[in-house]
Amino acid sequence: MISEKDYKLGSARSSIRELFEYGKRQAEIVGAENVFDFSLGNPSTPAPKELDDAIVELLSKNDSTKVHGYTSANGCIELRTAVSDSLNRRFGVKSNPNEFYITCGAAAALCCTFSAISGKANAEIIAIAPYFPEYKVFVEGAGANFKVVSPDTLSFQINFDELDSLINENTAGIIINSPNNPSGVVYSEQTLIALSDLLRKKQEQFGHAIYIISDEPYRELVYGDINIPFVPKLYENTVVCYSYSKSLSLPGERIGYVYVPSEAAESERLYAAVAGAGRKMGYVCAPSLLQMAIAKCVDSKPNLDDYIINRQLLLDGLTSFGYECAAPDGAFYLFVKAPGGDGNAFSEKAKQRNVLIVSGESFGCKEFVRISYCVSTKTVKGALPIFKELIEC
Amino acid sequence: MISEKDYKLGSARSSIRELFEYGKRQAEIVGAENVFDFSLGNPSTPAPKELDDAIVELLSKNDSTKVHGYTSANGCIELRTAVSDSLNRRFGVKSNPNEFYITCGAAAALCCTFSAISGKANAEIIAIAPYFPEYKVFVEGAGANFKVVSPDTLSFQINFDELDSLINENTAGIIINSPNNPSGVVYSEQTLIALSDLLRKKQEQFGHAIYIISDEPYRELVYGDINIPFVPKLYENTVVCYSYSKSLSLPGERIGYVYVPSEAAESERLYAAVAGAGRKMGYVCAPSLLQMAIAKCVDSKPNLDDYIINRQLLLDGLTSFGYECAAPDGAFYLFVKAPGGDGNAFSEKAKQRNVLIVSGESFGCKEFVRISYCVSTKTVKGALPIFKELIEC
Repeated sequence: MISEKDYKLGSARSSIRELFEYGKRQAEIVGAENVFDFSLGNPSTPAPKELDDAIVELLSKNDSTKVHGYTSANGCIELRTAVSDSLNRRFGVKSNPNEFYITCGAAAALCCTFSAISGKANAEIIAIAPYFPEYKVFVEGAGANFKVVSPDTLSFQINFDELDSLINENTAGIIINSPNNPSGVVYSEQTLIALSDLLRKKQEQFGHAIYIISDEPYRELVYGDINIPFVPKLYENTVVCYSYSKSLSLPGERIGYVYVPSEAAESERLYAAVAGAGRKMGYVCAPSLLQMAIAKCVDSKPNLDDYIINRQLLLDGLTSFGYECAAPDGAFYLFVKAPGGDGNAFSEKAKQRNVLIVSGESFGCKEFVRISYCVSTKTVKGALPIFKELIEC
Repeated sequence: MISEKDYKLGSARSSIRELFEYGKRQAEIVGAENVFDFSLGNPSTPAPKELDDAIVELLSKNDSTKVHGYTSANGCIELRTAVSDSLNRRFGVKSNPNEFYITCGAAAALCCTFSAISGKANAEIIAIAPYFPEYKVFVEGAGANFKVVSPDTLSFQINFDELDSLINENTAGIIINSPNNPSGVVYSEQTLIALSDLLRKKQEQFGHAIYIISDEPYRELVYGDINIPFVPKLYENTVVCYSYSKSLSLPGERIGYVYVPSEAAESERLYAAVAGAGRKMGYVCAPSLLQMAIAKCVDSKPNLDDYIINRQLLLDGLTSFGYECAAPDGAFYLFVKAPGGDGNAFSEKAKQRNVLIVSGESFGCKEFVRISYCVSTKTVKGALPIFKELIEC
C-alpha cells in the first residue's frame, strides 16, 4: 500500500540535488579541488556574525525552556514584530505581527499557501517559466494542478498573451519569483503593473480572488542600482513567501514566513487556512532558537562581496568567450544560453569535465543552463578556462 | 477558493493549544503565579548542558556555511550515524545510517510516514484510544481515513477484540504510542507480542503488509524499574517515529527521525516514499545546526528529578484525595478519572479555579482528564489544595 507518488518523489531526486550528490561523490574520486560545483543555491558567504552572536547570547542569558521550547504555531511574537516593523519601515506598508506566519523556510511557506488557496476541486496554480522546479512538486502535493507559462527567452519577463489564455475559472493563484531563480532577472515595475491589471480583469471575469504568491528569498540579493518593487504595494491580493536562507546565509536552518496582508481578499480566512495547512503537514512551529536569533537581526546582511566578484568574473569571462545570458540583476545565478541550444547536452558535456551546472530543462527552459555563483571565487577561476574550452570544442 | 478544511484546522486550534493560550491570557489578568497550567507537554527541565555547549562549539569551530547550510534531505550523516549506533548499542538491533530519515520532529515524521503507507484509495490508519489528538489531523492530512479502537479504561493496554474487528483490506497501519500520551502507561511486552501476532495473522489474511507506526517521543521518560520493549525487535513491519523534543527538552527545535528497519516489508520503497512525502510537503531538511549539535549528544538526558518529584507529589496527593489514575509509568502525564465521570465538565470546573487540565475527550477517552506534570514543582504544590477542593465540592 506504499504510495507510488511519494515513492517516485523520494527515489527520483530533483535534478539539482542529483547533481550536487554526484559532485560530492566525484570529489572523493578526483579531489574536491577538481570539481567545480555550480549546482546548488547554497550560500557560500558566512551568516552575519551578529546572528551567531545572538544565538550564543540567547543560550547564555535565557531560560533553556524558553529558547528551546515550543513557540506559538505562527511563530514567536519577537520575530513577527521584528519582521512587520522591518517591512513597514522599508516599504511603507502598514502590516502588523498577526499577518505573519513563521515557517520552516520558503518551501514550507509555499506548501502551506498553495494548500490554503486550493480549496476548490481542480484548482490551478500557474508558474512563469523559468521557474524553480520544486514548485510543481509543492503545487501537486497540495492537490492542485500545475500550469506553466512558457519563457520569454529574450527579456525573461512575462509572456502575457500566454498567461492570459491560461487563466480560467479554476485559477487560484500565480506564483512569481523575482529576483528569479534560475534566471537572476528582476521583474520590472512595468511587468508587475501589467500583471496586476490582467489579474484584476480576470478576477472580475471569474468572480473570485486570484492571488499572486510572491516567492522572495532573493529579495535582498541585487546588484547595481536596481529597484525591486514590493508586490503587495502593487496588487492587493498578494501573499508573500519569504526565507532567510539566502539573505542571512542559513539555508539549513529553515526559517521563513508567509505574509498575508490585511488588504488581501478574505485575509483572515486565508491566514487561518495557511496555519491549518501547516498544522495538517506537521509543522508544529519553526525552529525556536533560530526564530529568536533572527528576530535580533532581521535587517542584517551577509557580506555579498564574494557574489559581486564571482558574478563579474563569470559575466566578463563568459561573454568574452561568446556565451549569452539573461540580465543578471539579482539572486546568485547566471542563466546562460547553452551553446548548441540544448541545456541537457551542455550540462552533460560540462559534467564530463567536472563542471556542474544545471540544465534549464527542469526550470521549463531547456535551451539554457543555470550557473549558481554562490561558490568560492577559486571555483569560478578554476572553471573559467573549462567554460572557454566547452564553447570552443 | 480558500480551502475550507485548512481554514477549519487553522481557526479551531487543538484543545490543548487553546487551553495553553487561555492560560497565557489569564496569567496577564490574575498573575502568572495564580495560574496552574498543566495543559502542554512542554518540558520544564532544561536541555542538557552539553547540548548548548555543542551548539556554541559548532558555531565557533566550524565554517558557517557548513553549520547553517543545507544538509542532505535525509539528514546529516553525523546524526544518522550517531542515532544508528545508539540504537544498535542499546537495543541490539543492526541498523545502518541509511535507514534513518531525519525530520522536523515527530509530527513531521508521522505525517511523512502516514502519507508514505497510504498509497491505496481508502487507506485506513488505526489509533488506540487514548491517543494524541493530532494523529487524526495528520492521518486525514495524508489523505487516509482515521479509525479508533476505544480505550480499555482499566489497564490502558489494547482492546484486542475491537482492534481485530476494525482491521480490513484497507488497513495500512496501526499507530501506537508507548509510553503513552495522555495516559502515561507503557505497553507491556505481552501486549506488543499479542499485537504482533494479530497483525501477522491479518497480513496473511489480506495479503499486504500492515505496519506498526511506533511513535516514541517518550521512550526515555520512564519511572521505576520498567522495561520498554523496542518494537522493531518484536514485529518486523515496524516504522519508528522519534523526537528529541522530550528526551532532550527541546520541543521548539523540531528534530526527530523516521527509522525504517531493513527488515520491514518493502523497506527501500517505503524509505523512499517517506522521503518523497517530506519533499512534497516542503521539508527540505531538518534544522542543520541542531542536527549537528544533537549528533554529539544523542544519549544525553535532561535532569528528570523535577518530573520524578512532581509525579510523586501528584500521585500521592491525588490518590489521597480519592482520585483514580492510570498506571503512571512513563512520559510526564497523569491520566485521571474525572470525579463525576465527565472530563469536559471537570476540566471546565478546574479552569474556573485557574487549574488548566485537558479533557480526555480529545484523546478519545472522555471520562478522564490529562495532567501534564512537566511544570515547576511550585505549580504542583500550588494546585494540590485546589485539586482537593475540586473533588470535595
